[in-house]
Amino acid sequence: MSQQSWLDVVDRKLAQRAKALSRFADVKVTTAITDEHDIESLRTQISAGDVTVEEVVADYIAKSYAAHKVTNCKSFTEIIFADALERAKELDKIAKEDRSKLPLFGVPVTLKDQFDVAGYDSTIGYVGRAFSPAEEDGALVKILKSQGAVILAKTNLPQSIMWCETENPMFGLTVNPFDPNYTPGGSTGGESALLASHGSLLGWGTDIGGSIRIPSHMMGLYGLKPTSCRLPYRGVPVSTDGQEHVPSSVGPLARSLNSIYIAMKAVIDAEPWQHDSRCAPVPWRSNAYDDAISGSRSLVFGVLRFDGVVQPHPPVARVLDETVSKLKAAGHHVVEWDASLHAELVAVMDAFYSADGGEDIRRDVARGGEPFIPHVARLVDRGPAISVYEYWQLNKRKLTLQNAYLDKWNSLLCEETGTAVDAVILPPMPHTAVPHKSCAWVGYTKVWNVLDYPALVLPAGKVSSEDLAVPWTLDEAEAKHPMDVANIKLWTKHGARMADLELPVGIQLVCRRLEEEKLIGIGKVVDSILKS
Amino acid sequence: MSQQSWLDVVDRKLAQRAKALSRFADVKVTTAITDEHDIESLRTQISAGDVTVEEVVADYIAKSYAAHKVTNCKSFTEIIFADALERAKELDKIAKEDRSKLPLFGVPVTLKDQFDVAGYDSTIGYVGRAFSPAEEDGALVKILKSQGAVILAKTNLPQSIMWCETENPMFGLTVNPFDPNYTPGGSTGGESALLASHGSLLGWGTDIGGSIRIPSHMMGLYGLKPTSCRLPYRGVPVSTDGQEHVPSSVGPLARSLNSIYIAMKAVIDAEPWQHDSRCAPVPWRSNAYDDAISGSRSLVFGVLRFDGVVQPHPPVARVLDETVSKLKAAGHHVVEWDASLHAELVAVMDAFYSADGGEDIRRDVARGGEPFIPHVARLVDRGPAISVYEYWQLNKRKLTLQNAYLDKWNSLLCEETGTAVDAVILPPMPHTAVPHKSCAWVGYTKVWNVLDYPALVLPAGKVSSEDLAVPWTLDEAEAKHPMDVANIKLWTKHGARMADLELPVGIQLVCRRLEEEKLIGIGKVVDSILKS
Repeated sequence: MSQQSWLDVVDRKLAQRAKALSRFADVKVTTAITDEHDIESLRTQISAGDVTVEEVVADYIAKSYAAHKVTNCKSFTEIIFADALERAKELDKIAKEDRSKLPLFGVPVTLKDQFDVAGYDSTIGYVGRAFSPAEEDGALVKILKSQGAVILAKTNLPQSIMWCETENPMFGLTVNPFDPNYTPGGSTGGESALLASHGSLLGWGTDIGGSIRIPSHMMGLYGLKPTSCRLPYRGVPVSTDGQEHVPSSVGPLARSLNSIYIAMKAVIDAEPWQHDSRCAPVPWRSNAYDDAISGSRSLVFGVLRFDGVVQPHPPVARVLDETVSKLKAAGHHVVEWDASLHAELVAVMDAFYSADGGEDIRRDVARGGEPFIPHVARLVDRGPAISVYEYWQLNKRKLTLQNAYLDKWNSLLCEETGTAVDAVILPPMPHTAVPHKSCAWVGYTKVWNVLDYPALVLPAGKVSSEDLAVPWTLDEAEAKHPMDVANIKLWTKHGARMADLELPVGIQLVCRRLEEEKLIGIGKVVDSILKS
Repeated sequence: MSQQSWLDVVDRKLAQRAKALSRFADVKVTTAITDEHDIESLRTQISAGDVTVEEVVADYIAKSYAAHKVTNCKSFTEIIFADALERAKELDKIAKEDRSKLPLFGVPVTLKDQFDVAGYDSTIGYVGRAFSPAEEDGALVKILKSQGAVILAKTNLPQSIMWCETENPMFGLTVNPFDPNYTPGGSTGGESALLASHGSLLGWGTDIGGSIRIPSHMMGLYGLKPTSCRLPYRGVPVSTDGQEHVPSSVGPLARSLNSIYIAMKAVIDAEPWQHDSRCAPVPWRSNAYDDAISGSRSLVFGVLRFDGVVQPHPPVARVLDETVSKLKAAGHHVVEWDASLHAELVAVMDAFYSADGGEDIRRDVARGGEPFIPHVARLVDRGPAISVYEYWQLNKRKLTLQNAYLDKWNSLLCEETGTAVDAVILPPMPHTAVPHKSCAWVGYTKVWNVLDYPALVLPAGKVSSEDLAVPWTLDEAEAKHPMDVANIKLWTKHGARMADLELPVGIQLVCRRLEEEKLIGIGKVVDSILKS
């Protein structure tokens, strides 16, 4: 396709979006409902008759449009407002006694531009996928609707998805509501910018290296990457589709942990394995959640402070330290967790991402004719494709490492309890939100993708001026990795501005495969301690 | 390696085996314990003091050696008799009250020559893997020992494992105890010949296309292929290792269904996910088993009589028909299940087997220098390797088919109950045991590997002279597939001999992913009806 023609497609696509938005230009927020952070409190207000679903949806439309427009965060890709209002009116007609069967009744939901919604595109950041609307809803969307949710809009993501910032040649650059020069993270960056602006109550993303957790951390949100076989991926197109040895996971982002809990339970109670053959037929196990929150035993945490490659910025290190101190003060046990095996896991994982020599992404970009964004250009130019035989050897290496990590987890016992750790706690990233194009190292998140362990990010603090006075444990000259040097420079140059902005700082909690209930329960314990 | 040298390796390997066997040449069977088919009845006799574990093991050694020698079934690869006797003596010292904690206490176990046992080879049928003893026990072996089992020996399998008969250039051809001109099936053929000869009480194999179920069917045994992530594969070397998109499963073979039940529960209760990162952390769910056997509701079966490619021989079709009639008479429901999607599943699966252009198998054969057996030669010569990108597209096709099969299962409802089928019932093979090198079509088993559904084979009848009088539904001229023509000729030529031998005929039951407990429960219902 010629340059002219891909720009034509972009023009037409943006015009389509503008037209869909135009009829909502004058909608105003009329209630305080978008101030609520939690699904449960929203439902309480609907139940009490304080607000109708139609009012909820109208206010979220107004609020999300304002966020899109005023902060220029450019979150939207597909506008589903008109459908959402129709749906809201239908929901308001449902008898009160039937509403309790719908755990997401009236909940405004937004989706990364990857989840198929019938009649709308799933571009995954490619021009060539514009104007190819999905024929039917994907499995997750079907389930969300069946549980009473209202789909408002689809949101921006980077070209190819494979990057932790949010830019593509069609919808442009999504910016951080705290400062337009900063990224809201990625690849689920449209969601994080919108949720932080109260333009959505529940967002859905995907995560193959940190794409739910990184934007959650940067925008002060809760974000869960489940084990890949827990939630349905059917009807969710993705780059390098068919590469399943380092699997991508579907998961929720929200402004409260209780919303994450409600959303996960609602979807799993709908038996996603009846919709998607990849889902494990594992029902929601309340006992694992209840055990974690019961307080009947002290939890054991393994703390990873530094992954051996890129040292966290002072606020990130401080917030982790403070969290650990509070956990200990609350009677929990903390053991030091080291980064052994992480470097090998990252090396294997990087080889999987580009095992096809970039062919999958090249084909999609060629289909539209648009230019590559710089990060994607680097990814597809990493080297030639390997053979299928070599691919199998890579998979053997991965399995060996996965088993070694299992042994590592089983063998490090807490001295006081004699048991293995319940969860690992570590930074989500070595930095907070940063200026555009400054992200580099996602080693703190991606190891859990290659291990396929569930991981949860919680907001735990903010950058503060006190962090500016903290000297680095290692100075720039002692840093071993070029990315470490670059990360130190990032703080030196932008730390003061980050403190001015009071940028959010998250922590990451990790449990073992299919332990989502336990992880959310532990998250609740940690969240309560942090808030007390 | 020169021809001379691979033959040298074989000579040395066989001499090693002969030496290990020689000290047991005069061991005689002294009790009736090898007549028992069931783990529970063995344990009862040990508990009652009727027999010691040492006597059990000594008798199984004598019986298995006799089977190996007298019937010339050539089952053995590694002889672990001396260790087994030592182990038996230790077990006899365990206090009675502690024995009840060991669900496999005193159970003689044999293993396909693929499961690592410290100090012994796992050749998987390759000369080049001889004299490379495993450094430690594999995960399953560790668990079996921890549950009280006694490992007796390792058994023969085909070169590369990828075939449903049992021959390799090192240990030769394993024959059927019913007739040495017939195969006992494969690839777990050493196990099936030995178990049928009462030379083992519990055998373990692997199944990537039917390798547990086919030998079970041919030898009148019970054999279970679980979902691939249910039992541990760690420490089990395999051909095309790293190809995990059509995964191989570990599973048991036995002479009673109760033995399968006890073995599965024992291994899963030992939490295999603590030993192998591939295992799903799904505990044994008694409620699913109890629900199936409770008799509180009628079960719904989908019967597949013909897969559209190769028609079952008359005895196989008759035994299925008789089973269906008995199920109906017992009040269960049976709906017709068609073979839609099966041809596509088989095509995708075949492409996975040889996606590397045969490189993995070629390398292993080149390492030893031995010749290819004919079937393996055909497999590696199927065509050139595909690219990683093409491999990903193949995986997408597979996922699309898996989802389509899920929809198929959910959409065919029983008119009487309004529910989907509980299990599919079908032949394991279009024929019984056959003369060596006559196997061709494994479409009845392999579709469940690509779907990764658990499947159980039960003995359900025998070839009878009455089958000789049955005309084919389709005659040879109407057969559409060359393998169908060949299969018809096989019956025409050998049917009379098969009837003389009264060869066993099995049936196959299939449930959905991770429904092992339900499947074994349904198997018990069917087995009871067949025996009543």
